[in-house]
Amino acid sequence: MELVIHALKEKLSDEQISTNETIRELHSKDETHHQTSLPDIVVFPKSTEEVSHIMKVAQEFKTPITPFGVGSSLEGHVIPYENGITVDFSLMNQILEIKESDLLVKVQPGVTREQLNQELKKYGLFFTVDPGANATIGGMAATNASGTTTVKYGVMRDQVRDMEVVLADGSVIHTGSLAAKSASGYHLNGLFIGSEGTLGCFTELTLQVHGIPEHIAAARATFPTINNAIESVTSILQAGIPIARVEFVDEASIIQINKFSETDYPIKPTLFMEFHGNEAGLQEDVEFTKEIMAHHGCEDFLSETNNAARNQLWDARHNLAYAYVHDYVGKKMMLTDVAVPISELANAVIYTRKELDKLGIPGGIVGHVGDGNFHTIVMIDMDNAEEVEKATQFNENVVLYALERGGTCTGEHGVGIGKKAYQRKEHGAALDIMIQIKTVLDPNNLLNPNKIIDVE
Amino acid sequence: MELVIHALKEKLSDEQISTNETIRELHSKDETHHQTSLPDIVVFPKSTEEVSHIMKVAQEFKTPITPFGVGSSLEGHVIPYENGITVDFSLMNQILEIKESDLLVKVQPGVTREQLNQELKKYGLFFTVDPGANATIGGMAATNASGTTTVKYGVMRDQVRDMEVVLADGSVIHTGSLAAKSASGYHLNGLFIGSEGTLGCFTELTLQVHGIPEHIAAARATFPTINNAIESVTSILQAGIPIARVEFVDEASIIQINKFSETDYPIKPTLFMEFHGNEAGLQEDVEFTKEIMAHHGCEDFLSETNNAARNQLWDARHNLAYAYVHDYVGKKMMLTDVAVPISELANAVIYTRKELDKLGIPGGIVGHVGDGNFHTIVMIDMDNAEEVEKATQFNENVVLYALERGGTCTGEHGVGIGKKAYQRKEHGAALDIMIQIKTVLDPNNLLNPNKIIDVE
Ligand SMILES: Cc1cc2nc3c(=O)[nH]c(=O)nc-3n(C[C@H](O)[C@H](O)[C@H](O)COP(=O)(O)OP(=O)(O)OC[C@H]3O[C@@H](n4cnc5c(N)ncnc54)[C@H](O)[C@@H]3O)c2cc1C
Ligand SMILES: Cc1cc2nc3c(=O)[nH]c(=O)nc-3n(C[C@H](O)[C@H](O)[C@H](O)COP(=O)(O)OP(=O)(O)OC[C@H]3O[C@@H](n4cnc5c(N)ncnc54)[C@H](O)[C@@H]3O)c2cc1C
Repeated sequence: MELVIHALKEKLSDEQISTNETIRELHSKDETHHQTSLPDIVVFPKSTEEVSHIMKVAQEFKTPITPFGVGSSLEGHVIPYENGITVDFSLMNQILEIKESDLLVKVQPGVTREQLNQELKKYGLFFTVDPGANATIGGMAATNASGTTTVKYGVMRDQVRDMEVVLADGSVIHTGSLAAKSASGYHLNGLFIGSEGTLGCFTELTLQVHGIPEHIAAARATFPTINNAIESVTSILQAGIPIARVEFVDEASIIQINKFSETDYPIKPTLFMEFHGNEAGLQEDVEFTKEIMAHHGCEDFLSETNNAARNQLWDARHNLAYAYVHDYVGKKMMLTDVAVPISELANAVIYTRKELDKLGIPGGIVGHVGDGNFHTIVMIDMDNAEEVEKATQFNENVVLYALERGGTCTGEHGVGIGKKAYQRKEHGAALDIMIQIKTVLDPNNLLNPNKIIDVE
Repeated sequence: MELVIHALKEKLSDEQISTNETIRELHSKDETHHQTSLPDIVVFPKSTEEVSHIMKVAQEFKTPITPFGVGSSLEGHVIPYENGITVDFSLMNQILEIKESDLLVKVQPGVTREQLNQELKKYGLFFTVDPGANATIGGMAATNASGTTTVKYGVMRDQVRDMEVVLADGSVIHTGSLAAKSASGYHLNGLFIGSEGTLGCFTELTLQVHGIPEHIAAARATFPTINNAIESVTSILQAGIPIARVEFVDEASIIQINKFSETDYPIKPTLFMEFHGNEAGLQEDVEFTKEIMAHHGCEDFLSETNNAARNQLWDARHNLAYAYVHDYVGKKMMLTDVAVPISELANAVIYTRKELDKLGIPGGIVGHVGDGNFHTIVMIDMDNAEEVEKATQFNENVVLYALERGGTCTGEHGVGIGKKAYQRKEHGAALDIMIQIKTVLDPNNLLNPNKIIDVE
């Protein structure tokens, strides 16, 4: 590694290159149960040029490269199992340009979504994608992140107009343009988004943003059964109500929320909702939703009209994973993340809840149900081999259930190492095409090697 | 070609293979000014298996393959300049499944959008993308088509959940899943959509559809200047009004519409609009739009509430290209198709109109201005070399204007051969990545060779 460090120093200053034990340790793990592994070196580039230099050094010495945002991904994405260089983007955290009249913003990859929204607020704008964690825009693009507002505004891939990407050989490309749509050339933007650091490093991103809605209404609805709750969501979608958020939270998770967020929500299968629009239209949407939900056995439909109650609702929802972590000290979090066609959703959630009950390990189900996507949060004792084994099997059962119904093994968290085993089952012969693309773009398999796919 | 035909006959019947002069002639051109060229053979497969066989035969004999929908594309996409086999998908025109509860439909590639919408109507559903022509779903996916409703519902790439694709070697893959979102593997769906037949043949597509909106309102607004009209659209977008359609039509094109569609619309820069939603919300949207437009000097804002007037409006808009063709018998149509960031749109349209006036060749400007995308329709006399030269230069000027402002050379029509010369300028080094991907997926360069990019 001495030679590598020496070569890095041609363009990076001493403080930008670390072999400090604590720094390496911080880049050896994520927030889940996945096995840790140390990088040899952590670098903190400040410019595209420096990233390009790092890539060239990595090629010269055949050293693996792992890009790193804030490490909030959940499938071992950032854990450098082949060691090498971790590229931490935290010093590339400038908001470069806000083009108000185009509803566009250009950022460096280390900008976090909260940082971005704080700045955008001054312009009456917001960025829609909201994973629970305060992730970086680079990390979110690399995982095709989505979240509570995706049912209305779409996933990360829908927000990115253009990216500057440094390729394995250090060359720099742009993947898109500033136009709202294009039919020019192959869609590289879409290919690089979701590539989890395996095809290149993103050094600049141009994103589409939205005006903060004129009117916002939130609501909370409780149901006697999971089935009632989810079926009512399916009906809302079929009715074409442009709901902006609709989150399912099961009873076990409501208990966690009440404990952690000091709320006293009824312990029932619950939907958290939000509506965006003009005043009159929104009122009609809420009324229609209430009607549909009543039809599906809704026991209590509560509009949260004031800002404080609305913020509490979404903070509580966003902090749910942390509520579990907080309550089960010493245990590690495992998350399932399947998505299924909406007609299959109620049964999938019911199946999953039953399997979870059988496990006898604490956990709950929450979900971006408007997208057919839901998570089980399972808290496991990593020293208990049987428990780990059982939880792993449970995760697999849920994946297989989803795949058999035309779904996906990961709706939003990505593949990392956790979902690699299911790539062949999900993609079939298409996986070979992915391997070919990876091989062309990264012939020495140095970019986040063996994540998503194994090349050999 | 005898040997090729012999090999094709192993799986295809005689009627599925044609070397008839008229049939070949029908597959030698599109509806524009591009030079024609005959295929040697036209085949009409009925199944994925047959398409796979055709691909294998093509590989064996190194024969070029050109997929063909209805040939409505506008940049020479379907013209087989290297001759070989044209694969006409008109016999693969079955709607295979309508999954009402999932808002999904599975179709063969030869299904046309009108055929699809006619069937969907029975279920209260519709497919959003509407190029002016009655194109096939396969052709629309291959060009990433979009249209008047894209401002609200997105482009073709946003509607396709999964495709079955036959690759150059005859193998069959699926590019997606039935889930509404996924973070699993590389985004092949996005890569194949827009690939214009250069990466594979689509043999099955699963599309997202929508409920027919509860309420629809249309409107027509006239302005003293182009600038007023376009600036008002920018304001509407910035205000976040969820307008479903907003089309600009210039004075020259209004004249054509009035002639062809027997309307008497005022000869002014005009916007055609549509709003979808619930009754109360929609009324507020229309009112707010009217206000904004008044502020931008709108002279006349007319709501077209009854169905007949609304249908007339959109038929007139959709028939505009045909109106020009009809009026200039013997001339050929050339279309520009740039898209720019919305803040640049007004100036871009004004620039284009001025350049067009300088030309002294008949034509007009229309546009999906909500997406920053507009077309100039220019009618040229192909026997007048100077006119052809001038029109070509004009097209190039408009492209360069857009590219210099972060736009794209083609918002929706695609590259074909017409926009190939601008791929390097638009994509820079990214073009080399596209070439590499093409080479990996089609090593012998047989799939619609030399469209979009030149491999060598
Ligand atoms: C409590 C909690 C809730 C969550 N909820 C959601 C949710 O609702 N939806 C969701 O989608 N995710 C969710 N996540 C997962 C996580 O927040 C997302 O995956 C997020 O996009 C990761 O961003 P990051 O900055 O932490 O990236 P990291 O974890 O640092 O990196 C993620 C991947 O991106 C790559 N990468 C990072 N930066 C770059 C770059 N500049 N160029 C190229 N590659 C790069 C890395 O190599 C890695 O493969 C949640 C996580 C937690 C802890
Ligand atoms: C009057 C008029 C108005 C138009 N308006 C619009 C508009 O508003 N928006 C817009 O986007 N376009 C518009 N177009 C262009 C055209 O309609 C679209 O490009 C359409 O998507 C082409 O569909 P098609 O079935 O005619 O395909 P074709 O022209 O037959 O083929 C188009 C391309 O797709 C490939 N292809 C066809 N089928 C397959 C398949 N099964 N598998 C793989 N590749 C295949 C072909 O090789 C070719 O490269 C318009 C055209 C006309 C004539």
